[in-house]
Order: sequence, then C-alpha cells, then structure tokens
Amino acid sequence: MARDIVPAAYWGFIKDPIYGYIRLNDVEKTIIDTLAVQRLRRIRQLAGAEYVYPAANHTRFEHVLGAMYLAGVVTENLPVSLSKDEKQEVRLAALLHDVGHAPFSHLFEPLLVKHLNRTHEDVSTWIIANSALSDVIRTLGFDPKELSELAIGRLVKTDKPFLNQIISSSFDVDKMDFVVRDSYHTGAGYGSVDVFRLIYTMDVVKGNLAADITALPTLESLILARLESFRTIYFHRACRAVQMMLLQALDLAKDDLAILKTKNPDEYLEWDDYTVWSKLCTNPHSREIIKALSERRILKCAYERTFFAKDELLSSVFTKENVRLKLEEEIAAKAHVPTSDVGIDVPSLPSVPYHYAMEIGPISIPIFSRSRSGEKVSQNINELSKIVDVLRVFMNIVRVYTKSQYREHVAAAAAEVLGKSSLSSALSY
Amino acid sequence: MARDIVPAAYWGFIKDPIYGYIRLNDVEKTIIDTLAVQRLRRIRQLAGAEYVYPAANHTRFEHVLGAMYLAGVVTENLPVSLSKDEKQEVRLAALLHDVGHAPFSHLFEPLLVKHLNRTHEDVSTWIIANSALSDVIRTLGFDPKELSELAIGRLVKTDKPFLNQIISSSFDVDKMDFVVRDSYHTGAGYGSVDVFRLIYTMDVVKGNLAADITALPTLESLILARLESFRTIYFHRACRAVQMMLLQALDLAKDDLAILKTKNPDEYLEWDDYTVWSKLCTNPHSREIIKALSERRILKCAYERTFFAKDELLSSVFTKENVRLKLEEEIAAKAHVPTSDVGIDVPSLPSVPYHYAMEIGPISIPIFSRSRSGEKVSQNINELSKIVDVLRVFMNIVRVYTKSQYREHVAAAAAEVLGKSSLSSALSY
Amino acid sequence: MARDIVPAAYWGFIKDPIYGYIRLNDVEKTIIDTLAVQRLRRIRQLAGAEYVYPAANHTRFEHVLGAMYLAGVVTENLPVSLSKDEKQEVRLAALLHDVGHAPFSHLFEPLLVKHLNRTHEDVSTWIIANSALSDVIRTLGFDPKELSELAIGRLVKTDKPFLNQIISSSFDVDKMDFVVRDSYHTGAGYGSVDVFRLIYTMDVVKGNLAADITALPTLESLILARLESFRTIYFHRACRAVQMMLLQALDLAKDDLAILKTKNPDEYLEWDDYTVWSKLCTNPHSREIIKALSERRILKCAYERTFFAKDELLSSVFTKENVRLKLEEEIAAKAHVPTSDVGIDVPSLPSVPYHYAMEIGPISIPIFSRSRSGEKVSQNINELSKIVDVLRVFMNIVRVYTKSQYREHVAAAAAEVLGKSSLSSALSY
Amino acid sequence: MARDIVPAAYWGFIKDPIYGYIRLNDVEKTIIDTLAVQRLRRIRQLAGAEYVYPAANHTRFEHVLGAMYLAGVVTENLPVSLSKDEKQEVRLAALLHDVGHAPFSHLFEPLLVKHLNRTHEDVSTWIIANSALSDVIRTLGFDPKELSELAIGRLVKTDKPFLNQIISSSFDVDKMDFVVRDSYHTGAGYGSVDVFRLIYTMDVVKGNLAADITALPTLESLILARLESFRTIYFHRACRAVQMMLLQALDLAKDDLAILKTKNPDEYLEWDDYTVWSKLCTNPHSREIIKALSERRILKCAYERTFFAKDELLSSVFTKENVRLKLEEEIAAKAHVPTSDVGIDVPSLPSVPYHYAMEIGPISIPIFSRSRSGEKVSQNINELSKIVDVLRVFMNIVRVYTKSQYREHVAAAAAEVLGKSSLSSALSY
Repeated sequence: MARDIVPAAYWGFIKDPIYGYIRLNDVEKTIIDTLAVQRLRRIRQLAGAEYVYPAANHTRFEHVLGAMYLAGVVTENLPVSLSKDEKQEVRLAALLHDVGHAPFSHLFEPLLVKHLNRTHEDVSTWIIANSALSDVIRTLGFDPKELSELAIGRLVKTDKPFLNQIISSSFDVDKMDFVVRDSYHTGAGYGSVDVFRLIYTMDVVKGNLAADITALPTLESLILARLESFRTIYFHRACRAVQMMLLQALDLAKDDLAILKTKNPDEYLEWDDYTVWSKLCTNPHSREIIKALSERRILKCAYERTFFAKDELLSSVFTKENVRLKLEEEIAAKAHVPTSDVGIDVPSLPSVPYHYAMEIGPISIPIFSRSRSGEKVSQNINELSKIVDVLRVFMNIVRVYTKSQYREHVAAAAAEVLGKSSLSSALSY
Repeated sequence: MARDIVPAAYWGFIKDPIYGYIRLNDVEKTIIDTLAVQRLRRIRQLAGAEYVYPAANHTRFEHVLGAMYLAGVVTENLPVSLSKDEKQEVRLAALLHDVGHAPFSHLFEPLLVKHLNRTHEDVSTWIIANSALSDVIRTLGFDPKELSELAIGRLVKTDKPFLNQIISSSFDVDKMDFVVRDSYHTGAGYGSVDVFRLIYTMDVVKGNLAADITALPTLESLILARLESFRTIYFHRACRAVQMMLLQALDLAKDDLAILKTKNPDEYLEWDDYTVWSKLCTNPHSREIIKALSERRILKCAYERTFFAKDELLSSVFTKENVRLKLEEEIAAKAHVPTSDVGIDVPSLPSVPYHYAMEIGPISIPIFSRSRSGEKVSQNINELSKIVDVLRVFMNIVRVYTKSQYREHVAAAAAEVLGKSSLSSALSY
Repeated sequence: MARDIVPAAYWGFIKDPIYGYIRLNDVEKTIIDTLAVQRLRRIRQLAGAEYVYPAANHTRFEHVLGAMYLAGVVTENLPVSLSKDEKQEVRLAALLHDVGHAPFSHLFEPLLVKHLNRTHEDVSTWIIANSALSDVIRTLGFDPKELSELAIGRLVKTDKPFLNQIISSSFDVDKMDFVVRDSYHTGAGYGSVDVFRLIYTMDVVKGNLAADITALPTLESLILARLESFRTIYFHRACRAVQMMLLQALDLAKDDLAILKTKNPDEYLEWDDYTVWSKLCTNPHSREIIKALSERRILKCAYERTFFAKDELLSSVFTKENVRLKLEEEIAAKAHVPTSDVGIDVPSLPSVPYHYAMEIGPISIPIFSRSRSGEKVSQNINELSKIVDVLRVFMNIVRVYTKSQYREHVAAAAAEVLGKSSLSSALSY
Repeated sequence: MARDIVPAAYWGFIKDPIYGYIRLNDVEKTIIDTLAVQRLRRIRQLAGAEYVYPAANHTRFEHVLGAMYLAGVVTENLPVSLSKDEKQEVRLAALLHDVGHAPFSHLFEPLLVKHLNRTHEDVSTWIIANSALSDVIRTLGFDPKELSELAIGRLVKTDKPFLNQIISSSFDVDKMDFVVRDSYHTGAGYGSVDVFRLIYTMDVVKGNLAADITALPTLESLILARLESFRTIYFHRACRAVQMMLLQALDLAKDDLAILKTKNPDEYLEWDDYTVWSKLCTNPHSREIIKALSERRILKCAYERTFFAKDELLSSVFTKENVRLKLEEEIAAKAHVPTSDVGIDVPSLPSVPYHYAMEIGPISIPIFSRSRSGEKVSQNINELSKIVDVLRVFMNIVRVYTKSQYREHVAAAAAEVLGKSSLSSALSY
C-alpha cells in the first residue's frame, strides 16, 4: 500500500522501562514528533486510577510506543513473508491506534459518542485520514486512509486478516502492552505476562493470527491478567468512584468544553487532560466536584453485588442508560435522597477503562497444533481452555454509589430494589 | 509450649533476592547453622527442571529461609493475640518444614515411601524429634516433639488450628514462597503474586486462617500461579523426561544408596544431591543413564492427552503402580519395544514436584467479609470463586515417554491403548 | 512536641510500585487527604524529562508517600529510643517536605525566588505553618510550626539533630526515595540502590545520623546513583533543552500567572502543572514556545564543555545571572543571532532538578566502626571513600543552547568565547 | 575461518531470567548438548558465596548461554560488516569461553596452575581443540583450533582485533553477563547495568572495539558495579573464609583428586563440583573441614586493613606465596597458634573469583566521539573518566583469617606485624 520512497534509516532509540530500548527509524521519529502523537503525553492511560494507585500516572504516549515496539517484534518473528512496507505499516498502525483518545481516555467516551457521535476509534480514523498528520504520512510515502483503517484493525483491502489482528484482536499488541504497563505503573502485581513467549510462537493459520498450543498457558495468563487488572484497577471500587465524579463534572461543564463541538480533527487535538482539567476547575458547575476530588472526598459504594449466573448477563441490561436512570430514581426515592446523588455502575459502561477489551461474548483465538504430518490444525481457545470460559461471570457486577452521608440509606434502598448483597468493609485506599 | 529462657536477641540479616533482607535472632541463627538445615544447601528445589530452565538451581535452603520470613510476616500481622513463643515457634516450624527432603527433593519420594516407608514429611518429623537437631532445639528452650508436629502442620495439642494452617494449608507460607521463588529462578514469568496483600488482610475466623474477600483476586492469582507453574515447570514435558530418567537411575543404583537403609536420622542427613549424584555416576547400573543426561539425550514424549471431564479423574487411576505397569506392558508389546523403555506419567505421581500441593480434591479456604454489624462471616472459596473450580481439570494429563528411536511406534501403540490425541511439535528446550 | 490526644489507629495501606505497601494510620490518612498534599498529584517530579524518558510521568505525590515510608523504616530501626510522637512527627515531616513545590517542581524555582523571594523550602514552611493544612495538623495534636521546621530539616528546638538529618542530609529519605523512584519510572537503569541495607545499619553517633562502615559500599552506590541520575536524567542535554524552553515560556507569561503574586499559601496551592500549562497554551507571549514543544521542536545544544580541574568550579561562576547574560550577549554578537536565542546552562542553576542535592561542597556523612572495646568511632566519609571525592568534577559542565538553524554559528562563537570543546553527535531521543 | 556447510536453522529458545529468551540455531544446540558444555551445569559460578548469599547457586552453564546471547546482540548491532560465519564464531566463542573451568570455578585455579601448569583459560583452549567437543565443532564446519583461540580472546590470525575484544576486554560479554547475573542471584542490588545501551552504541575504531562517549556513564556504571560486586560478593569477608576452607580441603585431599593428574581433556571433564565435593566428604584429610562447613563453623577474620596509597600496591606483593607464608609464620609465632591456622588473604590471589577481571593496571577502553566533520576520534577512558582512576585503590586490602578461638591473639599479632587497623563488628551473615 505504500511505496518505498527512500528506505527508512535507523534513527536512534527511546528508553522504556518495560522493554528497555525501543529503536526507531526516521519515518517513525517523524510521525512521533507530530502534534497528534505528542499530545498523548497529556492523556493519562488510567484517569482516576491514581486515587488508588498513586504511581499510575502513565500516559497514552508511552503506551503507543510500546504497542509499536511489540508490533515490530511480531512482524519480525511471524514465520510468514511480509514486505518491508507491510512491516512498517503495522508498526505505524500500532503507533497511531490511540491518537483519537479524548482527554481522560475512556472516561470521556460516553461524551464523545453523545456529542460527536464517534467512538475514540472513529476519531483515530478521522485524525489519521484528515488532519495535519495525514500530510506528514503522505509525504513519507504512506496512504493515510489505509493506515487509518489498519490503526483500528479494520483494513478492508487485504488478503491478510492477521495484519488487522496484530492491531486488534483478543491477543493484540494493544492488550499485551497495556496489561504489562498498567501493572508496572500501578505496582498491582499482576500482569507479569510472558508476552514474548506468545509472540515467538505465533503463526498464521488460514490467514488468521494463531497461537501455538505450547503457548496456551501463556495466553491464559494474558487473559487472566486482564481479568485481574480489571478487578483490581479498571473496575476498582474507589477508582470508579473518582471516575464517576469526573464524568459528572464533565457533563456539568460541557458547555465550556469546545472539544464537544469540534468540526475538524486539528481543533479536537487542542484538548487534553491539562486543558480540560483547568476548565473543570474554573467552570462554576463542575468546580464543587473538583474541589471534592482535590481533598479526596469521593463517592462511596453503598451496594455491590456479583451475579454468578452466566445467562443473566445483567451487566448488559444495565448498560442501557434509561434502565439505569429508572433504577437510580427508584433507589433515591426509597432512600429519600436526591436522584443526582445515586449512581449505578456496571463494568460494561463505555467509561470503564478497557471495557471493550473485556469481551462479554466468547473470546476467539485460534490455537494451532501440528498433526503427525506437520500440518497446522487449529481450534478455538474455547474448546481447549476452561479458564477462558469462566471469565464472563466477572462482568456481572452491579454497584450503587452515593455521597458519604447517604451511604446507610442508599444501601438499604438498593438492597430492596436490587436484592440482598454483602460488602466487605476492609479498608483500602 | 516453650519457656522463654532468655529472650532471643536480634542477630543480623541474610540477603534474599525475593524479600530483600531476612532478619534473624540468635535462636534462628543457631538452628540455621545445624547440619540438618545447612544440608538443604545441597538439595535442589526442582531437580531436573534445570534442563529446561538453566537458571533453576535454587535449593531448599533459601526456600526454608523464605518460608520462615513469610511466617514471621503472617504472625506479626494477624489481628489476633499471639505470645512471643508462639510467634517464634511458627517461624521455626517454617524453617524446619523441609528438613526431611531426600536428595533431588520430590523425585526421591517414591523411593522413600517404598524403602523407608516414610514420606518426606514423616522424615521431617523424625529428624526434628530424634536427631542432633533435637538437642539444639531443646537447649534453646523449645519442645522438639511439638515443633516436629507444627513443622508439618499437624500440631495436635492446640486450640489454634490456624497455627498449623500457616505452615500447611491451601495458602500456607510454603506455597507462597515456592510459587514466587520458582518463578524468579526459572524466569518463567508467572508467580508475580502479591503475597503481601494476602498476608496483610489475613485474619482468624473461628480458629481458622481466613482470607479477606478483598484479597480474593490475589488468592486466585496465587492458585492460578501454582497452576501455571505446574504446567510450565513442575509437569513440563522435558523436565519430567529428565526426572523419569533420574528416577530410573536411582532405582537401578538403589543397592549403592545407603540412605535407603538408614536406621537413624543422622545417617539420613549424610545424603544429598551431591553424594547421590556421585554414586549414580559410578554405579555400573545407573552410569549409562547419567551419561545420557550428561549429553542431554533425554526421553521423548510420544503421547500426551488431557482429559477434560471432571468426573473421570483418570490421573488418580494412573497413580496406581500396577495399573501403569499393565498399560506400559500393553503399549510396549504393541510397539515391539522393551517394556523398560515405555513410561507412563501423570501429575499425581509422588515424584512430581509439589504434586501434593496441586490438590485434586476441592480447595478449602475460608473467605470472610463483614456484615453491616461488623461481624466476620466466612464462606469457602469454592462458593465464591469460579476460577478455583476449573483447576481440577488440569490434573487429567496422561503422557507416555520412550527413547527417541522408538517414538513413532510408541506413539501409535499408545493411541491404540489410550485413545487418540494431538501433540504439538513446536520446539522448546 | 505533640500530645498524644488519641493514639493513631492503623487505617490501611497504599500500593506503591517501589515498596509494595505503604501502611498508614488515621493521622497520616487525614493529612494525605488535605488539598496541600493532594495537589502534589499534579506536580510532576521531573518536568521536561519525559521528552527523553517518555514514562517519567511520576509526581511529587507518590514521592512524598515514599519518603514518609522510608522515614518510618528509619525510625523503627534506629537503635535509639524514640517516643511514639517523635516517630510520628518524622513520618509527617517526610510526608510534607515537598508541599511547597511550585508547578513543574524545580523548574519554577528561579521564578519563586525572584517574584516571591522564597525557595520551595521556604514555601513548604509557609504552607505547613499558615494554611488550612495548619489547622488540620493542630486538630490532630501536632504543632504546625515545629513540623514546618522539621519538614525541611531545620527543627531548632531539639537535642536530636539526627531527626533533622533523616529529613535533610546527604543520605536522607528524600534522596533515597527519589534516586530509586526516578530510576524506576525513567527506566534509566541506575538507582538499584540497596537503601534497606543502609537503613538497617544506621545508628546515631554523638547525636548525628551515621552509617555503619559495613554499609559504605551501599552508601557509595547511593551517591554514585545520584551522580548517574544527574548525568543521564536531571542534566540530560535534551531534558535541559525542554526545561529551558518551559522556563522561557513561564517568564514570558509571568503576568498571567497569579501564583507569582500570591499573598497567602491557600492561593498558592491553586496552581499546579495543569493550570499553569493551560495558561501557557493560551498566553500570546508563551504560545509559540508551547507550540514548538507540542511538536517536539526543541533547542539544540551547540556547545558543551566539561572542565576537569577541581579548583576552577566554573559552574558556580556561571550561576550568577549577570555573568551568564554577559557571555550570552557576547556569543550572540559573534554569531550574529538574537541574544534571546542563546542560552547558557550549568548544573548549579536553581532550575536544574535536585541541583541542591548535588552538593558542590564536600559531602559530610559520619561513618562509624567499632573499636575493640565496642565503642562507636566515626570518621567523615571523605576520609574513607575516594569515590566521593571525584564527584565534584561533574558539576563543571557548561552548555550553550540555541535554535536548530543557528547551531553552527553559535557553536563557533561559543568555542571562541568559552574555549574549544568536542561534542558527540550520536543520536538519542 | 569456517565454511558454510549448511546454513544453521533456527532451533528454538531457552528461557533465561535475565534476558527473557535466548534463541538458538541448530549448530548452537548441538554444541550446547555436548558433555563439555553440559558439565558446566555442575560448576557453580561463585563457590562459597552461597554461605553469605543463600540464593547464589547459579552455574557457569547459564552464564555461558548469557555470554553467547550478548555476543549475538553485539555482532548484530556493530555498525561494521561481518560475515555470517564470523557472527556465528563469536557466539560460539562466548558459549565456550568457560569450558575449561575446574570444579568450584576460580577456587580451584591455584591447584590447576600448580599441578597441571595451566590456567582455566589454557584448559578451555585445550578442551576446545583436543576433546570430543573438537570433533563436533569440526563436523559442524568450524575450525576447533581457531575457535579455541577466539574463546579466550586470543585469535591470532585476524585483522579484526575487536572480535577478540568482544570475548575478552574491559567491557566484554563475559563481564557484562556476570555482573548482571551475579547481582540477580545474590540479590546484592548492584549490577543493574544498562548493558544494552552500551552495546547499542558500540563501534569499531581503528580495528578496536570502542564505546561512544554518550555511553560513558553506562560504562562507568559497569566498572563500578564490578567494583561493588567485588567488595560485597567476590571478596566478602565471610565468602572468602569459606573459600579458604574449601581451598585447604582441596589441598589436603589432592591425592584423591585424579583431575590433578589428567593427561587428556576428556578425563578432566569427569570432574565437577558434585564429584569433587563427594571426595572431600570422604577423604580422611579433608573430612573435618567439610564437617565444619556443614555446620557453618567458618574461619574468622582477625585483621583487615585497606591501604589507600596507590603506589604501595601491597596486594601484588602478598600475591607471592613465599611472602605470605613468611608473614603467616611470623604472626602464628607471635600469637602462639599453629601456622596452619593463620591465613593471609589479598584480592589479587588467583582463587578470588574474577580477580583477573579487577585489573590492577590501568583499564583500557577506547571512547569515541565525532568531530564536526563526522570523523570518529577516540581517547582512552582514563583520560575522560576520573571514576575509573579511583578503582585501583580497592585492591589494597589485606586480611588475616584464623579459627574462632584464636581470633583475639591473632588480631594482636597481625597488628604488630602488619600495622594497626580497625574492624567493624557489625554482624552480617
């Protein structure tokens, strides 16, 4: 899809605490230095998580560098023939896959969808194909449109679906990087996944990216690390409390946030955590919430329940805004507190970090082994691994948040409305 | 159970790559310097695993120091009242829990049982209560008999069962240490278990050691790390091949191994990896196997099958020696190879490292949460965690090993006898 | 200095990637949740360093938690008698030692001094003794004034100078934490200093904090890690380029930065990296520089020279602003470029991170050993360690920065004015 | 020097805790599986160090794999043209550089020299060129003689001296690997050297391996890590006590050690830590020492003195055996103890691990920078780095060991003979 104008020359390396050194060529250096990529320095990976994990201040910027690095390791090691251009494009796609993220990453997602009618992936496509970045890409000899598709794993014109899957699938470079990186910066102690074993044994079977059966334990540990990360970081009770407050603040201050009315990508790119936060600090509607956060007065979880039955999948029911609103009203009424002070939370909401990566549906990864004749035969992971099967259960959590002073009443009301539950009161930050 | 003759004084620290510093008092230093404990320097934790993980040369010595350290962290943090003596005894029990291990650790287990009619735990008890070590223990003011019971988690005279459980249960200090340590030295990349979260939130409920529900993800990650370790280290195909060869060598040279006829613990303690290996090198019956190992000519796995049905639990059937022998004969006959060159392996065999720690039966750990009134209510982990439930499946692996040149024939014969299977031929060391 | 109103109860723990768990009591939790401490979440530890080390996004917040933790380890292990209150105060002092930092930490230092006539340490004292925080401290039973002194290591009313030295000396908890933490987040690979060996062997000799001679190698490795950090992070050529640009932007936008006119601490605390950055983005004078940074167009080092002669200590000469200005004018004139596009940099400038920690004068740490009679005898580290002696040399670096297009001319002019030098052109980010 | 019979095919990978995965081709796998290399599994890297660092049980086997890996990284990244064969030979040379090590590694060195008139490097050459290994090498298409020279960094027939320097120089792959690896397994906390920065910026200047000036801090940290390792591991007081006891045991049992009379390499290779230790256990002359070690009754350091004056270099004087003997006699006489119970130790003795790597003479490493015209100009590290200059001092330590009961008398006598000194009595294991 690209022409080799001039072969890209080795430029130098960037130090990364996870992989040591990330080596770059001139093309990559040029794209990294665009505003679209540099802006990611001011978009935190896990907005809100720092209230539980103080060191979790890492940004999308180092994540996309890491994803590009892993994409390079994959393409260098896949035992299939790839052109120099294809390899380069996969690396660039990984580098650019997150340029569309809004301030506070996932947290902003519902506002993006509501006001711009776009997911962050749509925005990535939009930016890669239509901004100043597009010109840079074109000058370097690549096709912005195709790169914008590949960056979200939806390159249409290809007979090599595995190229898309390197960027977006159940074991893509995005997930491999964030699981390991989030663990490093939170210190959460999960995520020591041996991604290199996985990569070194990957292959392509019938056009699809497939994992060798000998790496099945590693793959399971990746999936499980994601689950552990989900429970201990992304959907941590206090992290979500902070995120719900930020979300409310954003909603209250929305008239002050020009990003929600942007007509072109270059305007969009002016907004990041820093500029949005400063708006929230001064906006008269959001100011109070920011003040509360600044003294760590956060919402309390009054009610939590995990439903174990697979087929219930309540989480997806609660994803509907009107269902939630209805229940919030009911609980508030019973508890005699303002409706705006009752919030229902479930893991399938778009504002939950990586909620999309915690597939509710069955995970699909081809696992291959070799028959006696040497032929690669693949089965889906679900047929081989029982561990994967238990995952879906963990999506069935429902929580109700409220202000500290209303906790007791809301707890009782929620139990009435949503059924009995038990809550540990063990303290953690 | 002990009198505080003179309170133990701080002696100094030992550097450990896992925990940093292990601080000791005079009593501990004195016991560490006995022959019974020092001998563990020459008993490798995972004999045979180094053929796959070259750096896995760690010994029981550092493991028991680590277990003692963790035992100290547990007793210091449990929110129950413990006397100085109780705390000291738990630390000493952890320190001494493995003194009974034979050369090559678990590998020797079947020979111990067959010839001495003792498991390694029985031997631990025997040594603590009846050797030169006992005198040292007594002089320091402790009761060797009671310590010998506590060291294997079977202290009878106690109203505090949790003391035993710190040493021996589904989340004891032994397992916590070896999972983390084996991962560190193999580099296997599992085992980054946050044991301190687990320990800091432990409590005692109705006399039993219990885990706080907030630590459930951590507990699951401990259990899963054990499973991953099991699959990638303890029951690794090539590790087991080496272990089966060593086992055969031991059996062939048994007349030369006086340890199998020891009448008292002090004779037993003369034997370690070094002295047994040297015997195997020179013994005319075992020499050939050692020569093969010295050039890494190892047995090949001709057949492997995982049975997913829970209720089959074939593994336990295969544990019976006569069942295995019968099937080996049948396969050998069909393959036209000598019976001695066909070996069936299953994870429930006593020679498998930590096979006892991979409980086939349901795991039992009380998980507590607090009711609104502050009372601690506990449930068993099985009721709360689906993950634990899937574990048992992984015990249902059957493998057939043979010499390289017989591989094809034995594979076919085994398939006939044990049913069809698939095997990946992807190479790993 | 404080009364034990109610003994502080254990509250819970915070996860830290460096130390695992930091355990807190109620008093500490209350102070951590004040605005003065929470604000540090938005003050990055190493502003500008992320342009070279993309993952270096850690903040003062986790650093002060780490310093408090280490302070606790020190007071628990020092073999001298300390009251509960003294221990608590040392921990709180470490927690509060950085509350006075301005946005972008050290970078802002010259503006603080110029406009508020205060160093960041003066501001720390000011805030602890005179803000809303003071009231919280007082309510908890502590004396804000005394705590404000101890927090910068200058508690006057004490016969225990070592208490001050735990907070501020050549081997204080501040330095121990930042060396290790900066290394972790940059991935720079230095800083694996065994701080616990140092702490476990510390003692007090004649009222002063002293290191055991057996820990001398560890102490040297701390000092050296600081030096390596200095060269590879704090005074890294490109990091400094970014910092000089930020500094220039701040200076140009100063009329827009109300922090420079604050009359009381609570106004001061409204300013952080987020709010200042947003001002710089919109201020017409600083906007261009921010635009350049957003595309990583950074100043180039045209000239660098290290002077090895100890007695020259040119660095201190260059610290004088008028000397620098004079030389900048001279170089600019010779190079025919605007004076504002020539910048001289030396490591002793207040805007260099931790410049104060890189003592130019002799390092003073008492090292003790024991005479045959058991008496502790101490000598200064300079008498025992040659390594320390070579440190000062590295402060004698002079650099000249300019815009990319002027590089050649400025290089030649600087060589004329400051003497010949050599510069490697090897690329690094 | 070799013919490309058949290009080596990728074979698979070995897991290493330091580098993750070490990838091998068929040629390397074949050589690794020879007895000469496999034997290194039973030669510990740091015999005796485990008495201080219990986890320091790593062997030469994983070290040579690591050295081979690093050699591969160097040859892949050096910006000079190398043939496939040259790259392969450098990897193989690194793999084979330690095959000549005797049991207990360095400890055995004095006996090798005395009885076989060969250093371990001579033995490496001997084995590579004249054993069963040689045939394997020849069959694979390589010249055993040339490989035997390159393996110790003394390939004569080459116009590329840098090939030798990759294997043996002040910054060779041997040192890079052991510094990092010894630190990992001891947990000593030094040695977090960023070897990849060093390697990625290496170049060849006038035929010699040279380091880029931008990597000077890294190079210094390598040199310093070696120094710290030396002080805290290799020449640790208690490690040396154990080593001196082992050395004495070896000397007493020498008639039982056929290795000292071997006429051909294949006989030599029958000996390792396991077989020698077993001999020492049963030999009537060494038995007592082994018994003492088995209960950790070790020699005590009665006297230690560091001489700071560079020009004294007493260490080299003490290296002469007759000088040492003379002084030992004098001290023993004054202390009224048997001469055999007084032992003088200095770091320049061949039995000190890596004593040869701690060059007493000036370190020689070319450091290059680029002139304005792009030309690489190199200077020796001594001209650029003051740090390196202070190293030699640390070789001037003299210690006197004796049995516990003689400590006081020997201390006094040694002070009389060798001058006053001070000794810290702080306890460490």
